Amino acid sequence: MRAYNFCAGPAALPTAVLEKAQQEMLDWHGKGLSIMEMSHRSKDYVAVAEKAEADLRQLLNIPENYKVLFLQGGASLQFSAIPLNLLGKNSKADYIHTGIWSEKAYKEASRYGEINVVEAGTTIDGKLAISDQSTWNLSKDPAYVHYAENETIGGIQFDKIPEVSAPLVSDLSSSILSAPIDVSKFGLIYAGAQKNIGPAGLTLVIIRDDLLDQAKPEIPSILKYSAQSKNGSMVNTPATYAWYLSGLVFEWLLEQGGVEAIHKVNLEKAKLLYGYIDSSDFYNNPIAIQNRSIMNVPFTLANSDLDKQFLKEAEENRLLNLAGHRSVGGMRASIYNAVPLAGVQALVSFMEDFAKRNG
Amino acid sequence: MRAYNFCAGPAALPTAVLEKAQQEMLDWHGKGLSIMEMSHRSKDYVAVAEKAEADLRQLLNIPENYKVLFLQGGASLQFSAIPLNLLGKNSKADYIHTGIWSEKAYKEASRYGEINVVEAGTTIDGKLAISDQSTWNLSKDPAYVHYAENETIGGIQFDKIPEVSAPLVSDLSSSILSAPIDVSKFGLIYAGAQKNIGPAGLTLVIIRDDLLDQAKPEIPSILKYSAQSKNGSMVNTPATYAWYLSGLVFEWLLEQGGVEAIHKVNLEKAKLLYGYIDSSDFYNNPIAIQNRSIMNVPFTLANSDLDKQFLKEAEENRLLNLAGHRSVGGMRASIYNAVPLAGVQALVSFMEDFAKRNG
Repeated sequence: MRAYNFCAGPAALPTAVLEKAQQEMLDWHGKGLSIMEMSHRSKDYVAVAEKAEADLRQLLNIPENYKVLFLQGGASLQFSAIPLNLLGKNSKADYIHTGIWSEKAYKEASRYGEINVVEAGTTIDGKLAISDQSTWNLSKDPAYVHYAENETIGGIQFDKIPEVSAPLVSDLSSSILSAPIDVSKFGLIYAGAQKNIGPAGLTLVIIRDDLLDQAKPEIPSILKYSAQSKNGSMVNTPATYAWYLSGLVFEWLLEQGGVEAIHKVNLEKAKLLYGYIDSSDFYNNPIAIQNRSIMNVPFTLANSDLDKQFLKEAEENRLLNLAGHRSVGGMRASIYNAVPLAGVQALVSFMEDFAKRNG
Repeated sequence: MRAYNFCAGPAALPTAVLEKAQQEMLDWHGKGLSIMEMSHRSKDYVAVAEKAEADLRQLLNIPENYKVLFLQGGASLQFSAIPLNLLGKNSKADYIHTGIWSEKAYKEASRYGEINVVEAGTTIDGKLAISDQSTWNLSKDPAYVHYAENETIGGIQFDKIPEVSAPLVSDLSSSILSAPIDVSKFGLIYAGAQKNIGPAGLTLVIIRDDLLDQAKPEIPSILKYSAQSKNGSMVNTPATYAWYLSGLVFEWLLEQGGVEAIHKVNLEKAKLLYGYIDSSDFYNNPIAIQNRSIMNVPFTLANSDLDKQFLKEAEENRLLNLAGHRSVGGMRASIYNAVPLAGVQALVSFMEDFAKRNG
């Protein structure tokens, strides 16, 4: 029996997707072999890869002047690839700092250029928030401005897209496909697959085509966006099975009615969980309302001595992977697209019951 | 029904492995979730990852002073990572050139240091061969000597390990686990998974620990062997599902009796196929006997006008992916560990019949 899985990543995938993958595992469409045993250059595989891209373009309404790349190495390899590709000659960029992941991004970028770190954290009534853009020390002429749209560990999310004249680069690893987004406002979007896209080992890059061709000479060839774009993300063998599975997730999302439809469900899930937390003295979420992530909901128990008991009983109730990130502790419920409303309902019921018995 | 799949990569996997993966797809060991939905830092996943490494160590008899890394990006990303990690201060290395893959490796390395290309191709009685080491222009004090043990496209394989005093670095992508190898003779071994290990998206690096910590300052952090080694290949989220599947392949190999046992089968398969080709006027293999790959067998038809017909009829007989690499044409049968003897027998029967009807 499938449990409800609140893991932050690698995260839950839609059961229907796993069932289809299971069914096709040994013999894809009667061809006598698994999709993972096929050449990435075969007609059958290329059709699968192209369908995945087309479906993603439809889901996110990606304009024609953007390329979509299916790469390897995780968002963390993009922390290097982005400055190596985009810093250009002036070698300066702005990085907005809102948490652990945006910090990792600017630390890696600092190895390749002059990085202006824009501190954007503040508090409102004792709750963590993202400060108003008018207070930011943005620089004059950066090659690009980077931010992490949703901080997976902190559970803090931008409530609007920053308005800057330089190309905007955004880490959407934990929020891509959870809500509609205007791609045309970005120079580059990137996302590790293992939250809202597919299995770990695949990284999406969506890049405006005028930014493709300005890589630094020392860049590893595989990381060059221009080369990957020219070669359909197949400069070398891509992560074919992860790409295929992501395609199944995109198909599933279209069947759900697309990103707008799933966004409604996501809002409902978030409202239910935050609503309950706010109504309770037993649980607490540290983020100001307007910056609460609709994907990653960290919370603490009034008495942290009960943390272990909470996690143990949650697991007994088939509510898995609710421990907070090892760097912050407490709890975290990641409620990505693949976690159904029923899962959040079950979680809230359990939390209510646990609070009653221990409050 | 499963066909016989002679694809050079992504390549055939053992049917028993795919069946196990299929069975565990939705609910791994009764835990209520797929292994690909699990945190890479969870106890369950870490146990799977560690078991895979332990089994690989047993299969290859890897000495304790070697680290095993499970990375992303393919062997092609290692073409950059190797010079960035190993060139050190003298920035010189020797690259032995025997075909397309060793050429790709030295071209990428040349972007980071002074590369001495050692031409090692020769002919014996009109057949391609690897020249005797005594004729090579090895340099005096290179940081390392690189070679591709088996050229997947050319089907040419070293019949002995080069004897050099510098650390020996070898691309074993298409021959790892096909035959016993003395790991202690190498400084570094690397291999893309998608031939003899598992699905595409995973790359193995086996490195002697004294070579770990000499990376160039411009290296992307994720590519640093020292960092990956310290963090159990989890500096960031690894390709968890590919790692798991590789572990299933290692278990399957141990069940077959290990590398020595599968090597016997591989020799039998190669003997059967080369034996038939040599006995026929209709087919030809261009490689000298002592350098014939036991994994990748390229061959041509006496009349190349029949190539398309050959491939069409082969497919009708459930013998898949026999076209040669797009850069060379002709045919190629890749007969990795997962291709059973029965598959090669079926191929030879078909080839005999096709030759009779068209010879």
